[in-house]
Amino acid sequence: MSKAIVLLSGGLDSTTMLAIAKSQGFTISALTFAYGQRHQSEVESARRTAKAFNVQDHTVIDIDLRAFGGSALTDMIDVPKDRTLDEMTAAIPITYVPARNTIFLSYALAIAEVREAFDIFIGVNSLDYAGYPDCRPEYVSAFQAMANLATAQAVGSGPQLNIHTPLIHKPKAEIIQAGIELGVDYSTTVSCYEANGDGRACGHCDACILRRQGFQQCGQEDPTRYVDHEMAGI
Amino acid sequence: MSKAIVLLSGGLDSTTMLAIAKSQGFTISALTFAYGQRHQSEVESARRTAKAFNVQDHTVIDIDLRAFGGSALTDMIDVPKDRTLDEMTAAIPITYVPARNTIFLSYALAIAEVREAFDIFIGVNSLDYAGYPDCRPEYVSAFQAMANLATAQAVGSGPQLNIHTPLIHKPKAEIIQAGIELGVDYSTTVSCYEANGDGRACGHCDACILRRQGFQQCGQEDPTRYVDHEMAGI
Repeated sequence: MSKAIVLLSGGLDSTTMLAIAKSQGFTISALTFAYGQRHQSEVESARRTAKAFNVQDHTVIDIDLRAFGGSALTDMIDVPKDRTLDEMTAAIPITYVPARNTIFLSYALAIAEVREAFDIFIGVNSLDYAGYPDCRPEYVSAFQAMANLATAQAVGSGPQLNIHTPLIHKPKAEIIQAGIELGVDYSTTVSCYEANGDGRACGHCDACILRRQGFQQCGQEDPTRYVDHEMAGI
Repeated sequence: MSKAIVLLSGGLDSTTMLAIAKSQGFTISALTFAYGQRHQSEVESARRTAKAFNVQDHTVIDIDLRAFGGSALTDMIDVPKDRTLDEMTAAIPITYVPARNTIFLSYALAIAEVREAFDIFIGVNSLDYAGYPDCRPEYVSAFQAMANLATAQAVGSGPQLNIHTPLIHKPKAEIIQAGIELGVDYSTTVSCYEANGDGRACGHCDACILRRQGFQQCGQEDPTRYVDHEMAGI
């Protein structure tokens, strides 16, 4: 069985992606970052998912992106609320964390090299996160090209490293549908930028709105545990 | 004045490079990693150099590359001793740390984005470290191409990010000569893979041999503080 490194945040997208990678027959090493983000309950969700999908191993790496600042997800800057899709994609959101995916993929590359894995999965999505430069296909292609020059494996004539982005062009409703068919329990995943300690969602940040609309559009019940219990079950 | 991010390990090469960046008029943010390497005295050397060259700021980031393993610099694997240049370049050395430069450059990219800097300096050398995939010019070019798609700056029409590698084709003797002309005090830099707590060099690892030959070849006195005092002053 081929080995794959799967970047697992604990949110809806990466959890679905883990299920997809598993269904493709990969032996999975999951990789999660505790990066000083406000939504620590995401990391707990990642641990539950890794266990539920019986991954080979799960590494949680502490890195402090707060040292650089510049994002509402790591600094004490207000996360925007109740925005329309147009507002979300009009400019690079303040929730963008500088060079985050590049740092995450670099660690994945190091682990891939040590484990002799040639497949990395990252759950970027260029529809929902149109404003994030490091969620675009051209960025991922450039990272893959660099990765194939970066490692000891790259110098030899062995297999090339592949970065898989199975969700990159998928609308949220389609992601949810695929996940449900693969047995994902979305009640345990945390997407909210301001989830509370218990993992309950605010229902108003961009991530909550995209997720909620996804469940509505595919006609599935929304199992998200909201802080405001009135929001549940739509 | 333009801002530059300078990757500063505290060794001979990166210290010289800092002097070069300074002489080119950049305002410098130095960036050092404490990555569980055996030679912690390198980090102390980096602190001294940053102070001596009056950088604007110096960030030391703790990252644990030991979590992945696979290198004599982070694991308890013996560092090779008393090798010839041919032996050093015959294969990828066990002192190579998987994806290390990719991880370092990714952090530099994050800091560059937050500080609005468009210049990153890395002291890679494709002569002395011919066996290291991530010291080759083609690797650095690929990283730069990726970086210019990765950030919020990349999406706009602002300046492009430049990765400077002023030492990449320079023999060690030439690097030392350039540094001496720019006022570098090499007695405080640490290159040895197994420097002791006091920063004294073993004189026998690849890094020590390359450094020692560099001083011999340019006819400068070797100010390195060796564990074996007999080796000094050649």
